[in-house]
Formats: sequence, structure tokens, C-alpha cells
Amino acid sequence: MEDIDSILEPLRLSVKEQGDVVRELKTQKAPELDIKSAVAELKKRKKALQDKENELVAAEAPFDRVQFEACLKKRFFYGQAFEIYGGVAGLFDYGPVGCMLKNNIIDIWRRHFIMNDDMLEVECTMMTPSKVLEASGHAQRFADLMVKDLTNGDCFRADHLLEAAIEKALTDKSTSEEIKADMRATSPLIEGFSKQELGAKLNQYNVKSPSSGGDISEPMEFNLMFRSEIGPTGAQPAFLRPETAQGIFLNFKRLLDFNNGKLPFAGAQIGHSFRNEIAPRAGLIRCREFQMAEIEHFYDPADASHSSIDSVKELILPFFTKDAQMGGGKLTKCSIGAALKNEVLCNETLAYFIGRTFLFAKAIGIDPARMRFRQHMDNEMAHYAKDCWDLECRTSYGWVECVGCADRSCFDLQCHAEASKVNLQAERTLPQPIEKEVFEAIPVKKFIAKQFKKDTPAVTEAIQSADASDLEKQFENGEKINLAGFEIGKEMIQFKKSIKKFHTESFTPFVIEPSFGIGRLIYACLEHNYDCREKDVERRFFTIPPLVAPYKCSVLPISNKPEFDPFISTISAGLKNFTLAHKVDKSSGSIGKRYARTDEIAVPFGVTVDFHTVKITPATVTLRDRDSLDQIRVPVQDTANLINDMASQRQTWMQVAARYPSQDDWLKENPLE
Amino acid sequence: MEDIDSILEPLRLSVKEQGDVVRELKTQKAPELDIKSAVAELKKRKKALQDKENELVAAEAPFDRVQFEACLKKRFFYGQAFEIYGGVAGLFDYGPVGCMLKNNIIDIWRRHFIMNDDMLEVECTMMTPSKVLEASGHAQRFADLMVKDLTNGDCFRADHLLEAAIEKALTDKSTSEEIKADMRATSPLIEGFSKQELGAKLNQYNVKSPSSGGDISEPMEFNLMFRSEIGPTGAQPAFLRPETAQGIFLNFKRLLDFNNGKLPFAGAQIGHSFRNEIAPRAGLIRCREFQMAEIEHFYDPADASHSSIDSVKELILPFFTKDAQMGGGKLTKCSIGAALKNEVLCNETLAYFIGRTFLFAKAIGIDPARMRFRQHMDNEMAHYAKDCWDLECRTSYGWVECVGCADRSCFDLQCHAEASKVNLQAERTLPQPIEKEVFEAIPVKKFIAKQFKKDTPAVTEAIQSADASDLEKQFENGEKINLAGFEIGKEMIQFKKSIKKFHTESFTPFVIEPSFGIGRLIYACLEHNYDCREKDVERRFFTIPPLVAPYKCSVLPISNKPEFDPFISTISAGLKNFTLAHKVDKSSGSIGKRYARTDEIAVPFGVTVDFHTVKITPATVTLRDRDSLDQIRVPVQDTANLINDMASQRQTWMQVAARYPSQDDWLKENPLE
Repeated sequence: MEDIDSILEPLRLSVKEQGDVVRELKTQKAPELDIKSAVAELKKRKKALQDKENELVAAEAPFDRVQFEACLKKRFFYGQAFEIYGGVAGLFDYGPVGCMLKNNIIDIWRRHFIMNDDMLEVECTMMTPSKVLEASGHAQRFADLMVKDLTNGDCFRADHLLEAAIEKALTDKSTSEEIKADMRATSPLIEGFSKQELGAKLNQYNVKSPSSGGDISEPMEFNLMFRSEIGPTGAQPAFLRPETAQGIFLNFKRLLDFNNGKLPFAGAQIGHSFRNEIAPRAGLIRCREFQMAEIEHFYDPADASHSSIDSVKELILPFFTKDAQMGGGKLTKCSIGAALKNEVLCNETLAYFIGRTFLFAKAIGIDPARMRFRQHMDNEMAHYAKDCWDLECRTSYGWVECVGCADRSCFDLQCHAEASKVNLQAERTLPQPIEKEVFEAIPVKKFIAKQFKKDTPAVTEAIQSADASDLEKQFENGEKINLAGFEIGKEMIQFKKSIKKFHTESFTPFVIEPSFGIGRLIYACLEHNYDCREKDVERRFFTIPPLVAPYKCSVLPISNKPEFDPFISTISAGLKNFTLAHKVDKSSGSIGKRYARTDEIAVPFGVTVDFHTVKITPATVTLRDRDSLDQIRVPVQDTANLINDMASQRQTWMQVAARYPSQDDWLKENPLE
Repeated sequence: MEDIDSILEPLRLSVKEQGDVVRELKTQKAPELDIKSAVAELKKRKKALQDKENELVAAEAPFDRVQFEACLKKRFFYGQAFEIYGGVAGLFDYGPVGCMLKNNIIDIWRRHFIMNDDMLEVECTMMTPSKVLEASGHAQRFADLMVKDLTNGDCFRADHLLEAAIEKALTDKSTSEEIKADMRATSPLIEGFSKQELGAKLNQYNVKSPSSGGDISEPMEFNLMFRSEIGPTGAQPAFLRPETAQGIFLNFKRLLDFNNGKLPFAGAQIGHSFRNEIAPRAGLIRCREFQMAEIEHFYDPADASHSSIDSVKELILPFFTKDAQMGGGKLTKCSIGAALKNEVLCNETLAYFIGRTFLFAKAIGIDPARMRFRQHMDNEMAHYAKDCWDLECRTSYGWVECVGCADRSCFDLQCHAEASKVNLQAERTLPQPIEKEVFEAIPVKKFIAKQFKKDTPAVTEAIQSADASDLEKQFENGEKINLAGFEIGKEMIQFKKSIKKFHTESFTPFVIEPSFGIGRLIYACLEHNYDCREKDVERRFFTIPPLVAPYKCSVLPISNKPEFDPFISTISAGLKNFTLAHKVDKSSGSIGKRYARTDEIAVPFGVTVDFHTVKITPATVTLRDRDSLDQIRVPVQDTANLINDMASQRQTWMQVAARYPSQDDWLKENPLE
């Protein structure tokens, strides 16, 4: 990486200089136009830096994505959904190997987060009434800009279309130099363009529809949520949820009760979400239906400390702060403790989750050297976030956001409290009780009971939970008011002002949200573990760690003779006893071929039953390690135990191998007559 | 049950007599009208029998559902979704306890079925293009009949509305005796009514809308699938899947490849499905969004044997055959082996899955005495099924279908092969090779390569996979034809008839589908395990077995003093090491109160840390068994191991208790000074 750094240095400097210019203009309160053009220049320089970095990294570690994807398809890790009907973009089905990998990752996630920190798991519905997503802001703001082909109705993402048109025109000889210069200046700005700016550029360059060559519409907002309706009447419009977070917010009160009213606590949810992408691409990275695992850690904003911060304080992580991004700077590698001290991270709770996220990603086999935590720039934050750090993984698609750790403050609880008129606050004990004047509406039971009989409790409760001043105001217009469907007379309520002592006060909790894209993590895990051996570069395999690997071992008899069967059964039963997924392959291919096949589906260990197994007592088998290719000889009765220890990371291969003879040594000492 | 049987005997006899009448008329080929009226009479008698049985059973074991549901709500097992926005019928959120219970049940399912029988798990998308569900028949036939309130647009299930109207009219003094008689005769027939018959009766009884009192529409079909659209163009209509099965069928070819082309094999899927019920009721039993676990076991119809049938042959199960239902007969209790011999069960594969289903339901705590396997009558089978056996569980809602084991024969694979034009067959080796005349289209490479260059392989493949006779026919109209987007000249194809030797033949596999409704199983498990103790009937608890219980134990310090903390930490760390979910409750309530609270969330074991723990070395704790209320004294260091053994059913409480002193004995011998 040293070389790359030295090449990038001047580009970084150029970003930094321009960043300083922008800052200076802002402090001087320079004219808006001047600032805007300085920012545009800054963006151009940042893009040049980014492009160069991507180019250098790709050149250093070339990755054959076509071959990689062919391997995933051949072994059915996952595949395009509805392929026999021509396929649907952005929808994928997981096959047996992908499914097991995913189940293992989710299982580890549940242990690493939910069990480790006593979180409260919920499972909420995907189908969501519109009013909920109106309250959260998604119905208004969760949209991409698109243009429509006016002749055939095809739709395109406006920014992608403009990018593609510029790319094409730049290689076209007939494009004038003047226009090319304008295009080069425009290109880095596209990501931040407004609807109007995109429309203007599409017009200026006379961009046509790629499918028909015909005219396109002005850019328009397209909401990315799938729309449906609940029930047959048409009166309950609904969306499929775009994130699992909302379900946790809606259940906040129940979870707070479950936790005996105490903060902090975290709700967690693993589930599917949906985004109706205009034109999905990049495989598992941008799907229309995908699985997430989200945590909402609710805490009192007066105390953002975390009781387990010490367990992650020493971790050294690569931070890419927003200042560094503005300054063209490099990653800051420092401990979480130091990042807290330097105010790179704003509070312990956020810091704790960043640390846990790193440990999780490492545990599932993502390469720490290809991870970074990037802070969002102010202009790229989602509508609900106050601060956000993404765990990005470097893949052949560039840096990909796999986890987001967002500080949503009290945005969501406040939105829902306001829209639903339900109190979504928690209580904190005051250091000293305070006295306050209160105005109350006190139900007068005898009058209520006289009229409402068995509905008395409902009426009483309605009066108590209503706002007293509000009720009093309503009576100004007459002797009776309507409350929760009941007609209430003036005599049924007594209004009273008094001084009361309060030992607690209410507040809306803040929330830190670590949000994991399972599909993206799986993709990064697969790419980071795709490998070949020096002596056989054509044969590819996956080095997925045993803890996460779909199958923990293979069981391969060297012959199909019936005397092999009892050994296969014993070993298989032992493995099943530990719930260890394994693959018995009795097919007639050579052992080498069968090893290659198991390598391709990431099986870390191979158990081979050979003629020595059958003939020499006590019975032994060959145990092969995928990553080192080492083979040792172990007793049949130890096999399941050893695999279990290695699959659960209680022992490493090295530790196991040290205790048993190597296959070669053993064979020398145990010849078959 | 003896008493109930003797009361029901005459009713059963009356059903049987009428069943014989219907059979006799059918064999005599009597006029259709005679048969119809005899069948109507049979249905009335069956309904009378069913009603009486339900009444007697409810009287024998009264179940307070209101209290039961209050308990589930209080401890947030699950609750109505979107409650703070008023709630949506048929949508439920699982809270922490329900979620853990569900995760455990799914985990056991995966081990019991997928791992035990080496099934291939897949995870397919829920969003499904319409054409797929048109091919499967769901777009046409997956509907309920509803009527619309013509004044306000409210919708009602036509059959439910008619039932409710009859019930009301029968208690109304103003209804004439003549009409009452007609209504009583109509009531048992409603379930089987056609659209026209329902409409006629609603008209005859002048049924009005319950919400406005206004007129209602004629009954109309309402498709129960949620509708949406993929992408922004409106050109890709879609539904949310109504079952997970279709995803397995669509991936049949990939799974067959994964299994090296061999049958039998089973695909399995655990996932969510959606049904837009018109008016859902009955809680978890009829939801609009629910989780299923489905297996599609593909096999060669020439061989429906199952290699593991012996493992279930001795199981004695309660079968309720369709003949018994026609004859008003009782359950047949017999072994699976006998049921196969007597042709109660039509093949080994179906029989095997019925046996495994029973074992699974028992393992997750459903009461075997409240289970039966009911065979579908011919007129109630889904459009795809040839035979079907439901595992029904008796609950306070009556007998509820929790699992269906359907024989779908080759219906689905054939539908999709036809609609997608993709071959979805498998191959079987012939006992002897056969010779057949074939007509082939052979690509002529030199002409293809000359014109298509790098597309040559694609063109070659397109020619080879097309139907040769079809291609020849197309050339009758000209020298060139269009194939897969390529313009193919006559010279590029050579047509050839020849005799070929075949060692295999193709066939469409048959499928047995065990389909599990997770929510219904959870509901049955909860109801069957809701209990109280004789000496304290007010205090309810759940006897869910340790294997499935959400939390495996509680850890309760008797005091909040800091010297208790190290013991809590040691025990908790030990439990986490085994991934055993547990609940530490340091709250100040009495131990009795805290036990009651853990009883309510089904915690099977309680660990109490008391002053003896702190003061006497080696440290010991009290271990309490929820079901027997027995308490023993065990060393702190044994605790996690013991809980782990009991939670994974390696040891029972009885076995553990036999090895340690009872709490009382131990206290007597170890007084605190």
C-alpha cells in the first residue's frame, strides 16, 4: 500500500487545499455563488482522488468477478429469482449453500449482539399501513429521481442515465471539445444534483432514452417503497417496510414495560425489507428484497455512557472521518478509546457498537484490512440521522456500505408520538423531587356511572388521559362534549388546579441504530474468501472460517463397498449429534475431484474413509484441512468431537494437528499387508 | 372421554346411516336432485355431531381464553401490530418471549427435518411476478367470496355474514317459525355453498350490512393475494406469495443439479407468506402475514418407498379418515405400519412424513392427546392436491389445522414447465436401453460462425434446445426465421431423422408436501401448556418443555448487595458459554413474586443465589423446577452444565434431582451461624 499512498499524496493535497478554500469562504460569509463554485471544484478533486484510488487498488489485486460469479452460480450459493421465467432484476433466491451460510451468520449475529447484551428481539410485520410511514417521513422522502421514456414507458434513474450519457459522449469523436469540458466538470457533481439541476443537464446534452432513442420526461420523484392495500375495501393503503427499524419504534412502549420501565435497553430485529429500486444492479448489493438485522439502543440522552465500553476500548480501527474526507486525508488508525478522547466518536454508546460491529464482521470472515468506518458527510445523511458511521468493505464494486451505525436521536419516537397521539416517553428519577402546578380533569364517578353503567371505566379512563385544558376549552361551546365516542356532560368532570410533588420527569429517549445488511455482508465475506492455491491457480476455493462455513466437513468413502457404510454411519451420526452440517459424498469421482468440489462450497474439513479405516483396528480416518491442505490421522471415535471443537472455535487446526500423527507418517507405520 | 363417546354414539350412528344412503344412491346412479338432498341431510347430521362434540369437550375442560390472552399480552409474547395507530386486524408482532419461542421452534424444525434427512434448504423471494402465480393457478383460484356494503364500501365474507345473520334471526322473536326452520336447514350447508347459492340465501333472508344497515352487493370473488408492482413502469404486476412452496418448484432444476441429478430429494423453505384476508379473526390462527415451513419431497412416482420408514412404523397415531368422517365414525388409532398395510395411507413417503410431523409436534410441546390426522374430503382439497392429511390440534377454537401433508403429484412442476417452456423433468435409468426414432436440428457451425462470430455458441445452443419439428415448420414460410433474437438462415440448420439408443427416460417427479404453519403451532403449544397449580389456581404458568422454552432459566439474587454480583456473573457467563438464554432478575420483589413472573414466561428452571451461597464454600445455589416445584442444592460450578443438559434433553429433572440434596435437607445440614 506504500506505493499507492505516494501516488495518491498529491491528489490528497489538492483536495485538502480546496477544502481549506471552502472553509475560508464559509467563515468569511462570502457570496453564495462563490461558495457553490468552490464546493463544486472540491467535489471534482474528491472524485479524481477516489477514481485514482479505485484504479490503483484494482490493479494491485485484480479480481475476476465473472469467474467468481460463475462459481457461485454453479454451486447454487444464490441465483436470480424466477430465472425460468426470464428472471427479475434485484430479486435473488438463496440455494442450499447460501442459505446455510446466511443462517450461520444470523445465528452468530444473534449470539454476538442479542444474547451478549441481553437485547429484546422482536419480529414485526412487513406490511405497514401508509400512515405509519407518513409519520416516519418515508412516504415523503424515500425516493429516487427517475425519467420516463415518453414512447415506451421505460424508466431510468436520472443520475445513472446522465452518467452513462456523459461516459458515452466523452468517447465519441463527434462531441465538441467545449461540451466535453463541460461534461467532465459536471460528472463529479451528479450525485448531489437536485431534480432541477439533473433535468437541466439532461436537456442541455439532449439525452435520449437508451431503449427507444426517443424523448424522455423531466426527472420526477419515484418512491422506493412497494405499495399495496390491506383488506378488500381500498381504504387501507399500505407499503412493505423499507427498513425493520420502524417496528421496534412502534413497540417501544411494550418493550419499555417488558424491561420494567428501565433504560438503557436495546430492541433488535432480524427481518426482510423491500425497496422498489428503479433499475437494480450489482447483484446482492442492491436488491429489491433483502434481509436486515437492526438494533435500536434506547438511552437517556443525559447519559450516553456504556457499561461495557472497556471491552472494546483497546480495539484499533480504521476511521475515515468527515474532516478527513473534506481534507483528502487518509484513514485515522487509532483505538476506540483514543477516538473517544479526540472526539472523533461523539459518545460511548456509539463507540461501543462500532467496536462490536468490527468484531462481528471479523468473526464472519470479512478481511479487517478491507474494512473502514466512514463517517457520513452532513449532506448525505438520511432524513432521520444526526450522525452516522458506515462499516464499508472494499470489494470489486469499490467500497460498499455493509453496516450503518446511525445516531437517530429522538427523531422517530417523536414523530410517532405526535402522529399517534400516544406518549412514547420514558421516566428518569430526579435527584430531588420538584413541585409543579398541575391542572387536572377529575372524573365524577356518580354522574358517569348513572349514564354509562358498564362503560364507566372506559369513560373514566378517557377523561383521565385527555388534556385537561383542552377539555375545559371544549366546554366553552356547550354543556356536552364528545370524547372517545361518549357524550360527556359538564357535571361529569371536575377541573382542579393544584401543586404536586414529582419524583420523576419524562423525556424522549435517544437511540443509536446499528443496521446490518445481511446480503451485503454475505457478498463481502464471499469475495474476501475467494482464493486459489499457488500450485493450482485454476482451482478456486472459499476460505470461509469454520465458524461460518455452510457445511463443517465432508465425509468421503474411498470406495462404494458395503463394508465402508458402518463407518460412514457412525461418523455421520456423531456429527448430527452435535448439529454439525456435513456432506456425505459417495459418488465415484476421485478423492481429488471430490475435495475440489467441497473446496468450492467452502467445506473446511474433509474426513476420508479408506481401506486402512476398514482393515486396521482401532479404526482411523484421514482428516484434511482445506486451508493448509495438511492431513492427519485420527481415530473414528474422535472425529465428531474434533470437528465440533474446530467449528465452534474452541480449538484451531494447529492445536488439533499437533496432537495426531500426520497422514504420511501414519501410513508409513501402518502399511496394509 | 368415555361419557362423551356414549353421548355421541347415537349422533354418529345417524351420520353413518345417512352416509350409507348417499353411497347407495350414488351406486344406483339416482337422479342428481335426490343425491343432492341426501348429501345436504348428511351435512346437517355431521354438523350436529361436530357441534355436540365441541360443546361436550368445552364443558369438560373449560378454557378461559380472555385470561389466557391477557397473560400473553401482559408478558408481550405477541401483540397486535400497529397498536399505537389503532391496530390492523390480522397483523401481529412477536415480542421477546414469543420471538425466542418461535426461534427455538424453527431451530428444532430445521434439525428435525432438514438436517435429519439432508434436505436442501432454499430462501426465495416473497415478491412474485403475476405470471408465476397465474401458472400455479393462484391468480385464478385463490379467492374468497365477499359482499360489499353499497353505502359505505365495507366488505364482509359472504359466508360469515350469512352465518351471523342466521344466528341473530334465530334468537329474534319476530322471525317466523317457517323461516327459522329454513335457516336451521341452511346453516350446515353454508360452507359448501357456491357464489349463486350464497347470493340467493342472502337475498331470501334480506340480509343487510352490519355496519350501515344498508344494502349489500351480490357475492363476488376477492383474490386473497396482496397485489403490488415491481419497478416503476407498471409493466410488472406482482403478488406477495401466498405460500413458500412455489419458490421450491421454481428452483427444482437447480436443486436437482445440486443433488447430482438424483431423486428422491427434498427442498425445504422457512419463510413468510401473505393472505389478504377479508376479515381476519381468531388471533394467530388466521393472519394476513405469517411464517411457514414447507418441504417439497420430490420422488419418482414409480417408487414411493422411503428408506427411513422403519424409524416411524411403530408409532401409533390417531387417524381420522375421510370414510370415518362420512360414516360419523371415530378416530382409528393404529400404527403407521398398520395404516400402510390397510391402505389408510397410500404410500410410504406420505406415511414417513406424517410420522415425523407427529414426533416434531410432540417435541415442541403439543399435547398428543389433542392431536389427530384428518384426511381431506374430496370436495375440500386445494386445487393442486390429490390427497391431503392435516395435523389438527384441538384448541379453544375447535380443531385447528396446524400442518398439512399434501400429495401434490406433479401438478406444480407441470404447470411451470408449460408456462415457462423450461424442461422440469428428471431422468430415470432404464432397466434396458431402448431405441427410438428422433428428429433433430443440427447446427451447421461454419455458416453460423461466418455470420454470428462470437455469438456462435449462443446461436448453436438456441438451435439445439428448440423443438426440431417446430423449426422445420417455421421455415415453410421463408428462408429465414427468428430464434432467440437471431435471424437464422436455412443453411445454418441440418434436419435429421435417426434411430438412437436411450439408457434413460424423462419423467416429471411427484411431490409430497408437508407444510407447517408456525404461528398456529405456537398458538397450540401455548394453549396446551397453559396451566395452574391445584393450590393456587389464580397464578397461571406455562409448562412449555425446556427444549423449546424461550428462556432456559432465571438467575435470582435474594439481595442486591454487591457481594452477590460475582456469583451472578459466573453463572451468567457459564450459561452464555452454552448459548443458553436466561433472565437475570435483580429487582427487589420477593422471591415468590419473581418466581411467579418467570413462570408466566415459561422459564423452566430457577437459580437462586442466597446468603448461603455467599457465605458457605464451596458456593452452592438453589435450583428450582417449574413443573414439580421441587428445589435442590447444587454447586455454582455445576449449574450451567445441568441447565444445558436439561435444556437439550440429555437429562431429565428427575435424573438431576436424584444426584443432589433437596434444598430442605441441605439447609438443615448447613445452617448459617
